[in-house]
Amino acid sequence: MKPKNAFYAQSGGVTAVINASAAGVVETARKHKSRIGKVFAGRNGIIGALTEDLIDTSRESARSIAALKHTPGGAFGSCRYKLKPFDKDPTQYQRLIDVFRAHDIGYFFYNGGGDSADTCLKVSQLAGKLGYPLQAIHVPKTVDNDLPVTDNCPGFGSVAKYVAVSTREATLDVASMALTSTKVFILEVMGRHAGWIAAAGGMASSPELEQPILILFPEVAFDQAKFLSRVDAAVKTHGYCSVVVSEGVKGADGKFLSDQGLRDAFGHAQLGGVAPVVAGLVKNELDLKYHWAVADYMQRAARHIASKTDVAQSYAMGKAAVEFALKGHNSVMPTVQRVSNKPYKWKVGMAPLDKVANVEKMMPADFITADGFGITDRCRQYLAPLIQGEDYPPYRNGLPDYVRLKNVAVAKKLAASFKI
Amino acid sequence: MKPKNAFYAQSGGVTAVINASAAGVVETARKHKSRIGKVFAGRNGIIGALTEDLIDTSRESARSIAALKHTPGGAFGSCRYKLKPFDKDPTQYQRLIDVFRAHDIGYFFYNGGGDSADTCLKVSQLAGKLGYPLQAIHVPKTVDNDLPVTDNCPGFGSVAKYVAVSTREATLDVASMALTSTKVFILEVMGRHAGWIAAAGGMASSPELEQPILILFPEVAFDQAKFLSRVDAAVKTHGYCSVVVSEGVKGADGKFLSDQGLRDAFGHAQLGGVAPVVAGLVKNELDLKYHWAVADYMQRAARHIASKTDVAQSYAMGKAAVEFALKGHNSVMPTVQRVSNKPYKWKVGMAPLDKVANVEKMMPADFITADGFGITDRCRQYLAPLIQGEDYPPYRNGLPDYVRLKNVAVAKKLAASFKI
Repeated sequence: MKPKNAFYAQSGGVTAVINASAAGVVETARKHKSRIGKVFAGRNGIIGALTEDLIDTSRESARSIAALKHTPGGAFGSCRYKLKPFDKDPTQYQRLIDVFRAHDIGYFFYNGGGDSADTCLKVSQLAGKLGYPLQAIHVPKTVDNDLPVTDNCPGFGSVAKYVAVSTREATLDVASMALTSTKVFILEVMGRHAGWIAAAGGMASSPELEQPILILFPEVAFDQAKFLSRVDAAVKTHGYCSVVVSEGVKGADGKFLSDQGLRDAFGHAQLGGVAPVVAGLVKNELDLKYHWAVADYMQRAARHIASKTDVAQSYAMGKAAVEFALKGHNSVMPTVQRVSNKPYKWKVGMAPLDKVANVEKMMPADFITADGFGITDRCRQYLAPLIQGEDYPPYRNGLPDYVRLKNVAVAKKLAASFKI
Repeated sequence: MKPKNAFYAQSGGVTAVINASAAGVVETARKHKSRIGKVFAGRNGIIGALTEDLIDTSRESARSIAALKHTPGGAFGSCRYKLKPFDKDPTQYQRLIDVFRAHDIGYFFYNGGGDSADTCLKVSQLAGKLGYPLQAIHVPKTVDNDLPVTDNCPGFGSVAKYVAVSTREATLDVASMALTSTKVFILEVMGRHAGWIAAAGGMASSPELEQPILILFPEVAFDQAKFLSRVDAAVKTHGYCSVVVSEGVKGADGKFLSDQGLRDAFGHAQLGGVAPVVAGLVKNELDLKYHWAVADYMQRAARHIASKTDVAQSYAMGKAAVEFALKGHNSVMPTVQRVSNKPYKWKVGMAPLDKVANVEKMMPADFITADGFGITDRCRQYLAPLIQGEDYPPYRNGLPDYVRLKNVAVAKKLAASFKI
């Protein structure tokens, strides 16, 4: 019997290491050709499945697939697209089955965060609901680090390393300028709901190189007076300080701090970040000179400073997903299980998807200091191994030698098209 | 006769590699102990000289001084402070001489950009004007790359590499998201007057990995309609594009684009960056989803991704400054002279300070494409060697192991203090 083909797709915000998971899936599948035929990737996530826009990864050389391990972004394209519940729109699911049947797909690997786990969970129920035999395995990925069950999420360690390194570097800069110029540096980082990424800014300060850094978490309601008094005190003591602010910080009124109703000269609303808002406070209330930065996509695309731990775990999750499938599992997700802190040891675990989908893991209260502006030793112990190790990409002509795949389309077999 | 001591100070905005120049000065001086006594560093630039706040670099170990080669920021503190003309405030100059005489200083090394070269030029004239024998050598440094005579400025190559790498990475990210989400990524970089740093964003796209990138230079008046039509075309062709915008971009009216009179809900003026202004245009006029980032201090502090060429040249400038002093020179600056492009070869040159001070080097017109949104091959040939090579710092516990010096103060010898 000819082995079934596999479908793999990337979903949601991409990361510096999501392609390492892709490499884990493709390379592991290639090692089991008697059990898995070709790996077809969805062009732009699940949309590629719905529109029968499949990429034939067997057309990519071993070298190109290996290069995915050091290439950021989503090599096959990602999407922000959530399947509707089965009873609301059964045609979507019927279409998936039509495509999977046409291309003889028996394995479904979906690489994403919490929303994507929900999509994967729904697909994993197709076998039971519509009688199409399919094994669906979710491959975890999210810079937000907010998936439950797993100790941490592939993608997070690298953004954490980027934020810690950048904060340390920029803080050395402001320290040099403070006497006659900038005294407060503000860095805005991602994290709409959970403060994991902002917490990483706290790692910039270590016993070998202490730095005055205040963190604003989305988990802690912003207290303007308390914040300004802390900035004031830090500048009086050290001459300067840095502030790492999560984009999701809210005031006591529950509104995003970034949503300050900025208007341009013509009265048009302007979507500012939260960093300029915090900078404005520092300027208007304390009359201190500031600089601010917004890391945005740079932080989650910064493969050049990826964490070696993160790259290894991202690859391992892709590999484990295929191995789980070969063992007959369905509706599960490989996880990272922390075995010990010193030395850091971890192993691959397994979580049922219904325990993962649509659940957000916030920072534990004991990871944030009592004053609400810093990270505790427990948090440091948790974060330290995740940013450990460098895994530099190769360079050519001064730039990282990132791969762009050929992404050859698989010939369509269905007469009907599908509108997204 | 006891050899004269040297004074070294850092001035203006710091860089990822200004400390490499400091290492070049100190290590070279240490090799010539019969000719140069101690190197005293000014705490916070020239202010340290005026206030007799000197740092005794001889108290730092060879290992710490060597670590300066991989540590960003200004290890001794920098300042934004310009000496007044001699006839406006002779007391400043008299004070400098008092301090130099008290500490037996015969060499003056000043590490900065155009404004600092002016300070160094004034100090170099002290011997003639006030009869105090002193050799003043300027050590070039500026991320803006706008010093004349020298082929390029130490500090620029590393920020250029950071911007090129970050643009390439973030552009891979937006490419993955474009179908259902973000289509335009906007990165704001430094460069108030000259577009050198923005130009580096153009290097992200190369024959091996072409990317649709538009650059907004301060040298080119912003043409809104033309810009929007280019963004529109890029998104229609590729599905996405990136925009690298210099903070100094001005409209046809000569006003900074960033100065759009933003007001918060209470009517307070908000100093926004130019990136959100460009993002607002893309959203309001083209209805395209965007993301924007502001690199700010991160770009000039990013020692983790410094250019190897830049580190080598920065060190060489510090070393050459001391060697020029030993040869009896005064009022000069070492320069980088480009000898050939392929292979890239350079050597140390020398420029008289009066040809350097207060002169800004803009981008040549033939470095910008005719449409005003890109860089020419000539520009690429100029930039390519400057971002060449990686010079990674050592890491400890997942973070760059940057040094903080002891910075032990030299005992004051003068009774009078000096008010800045």
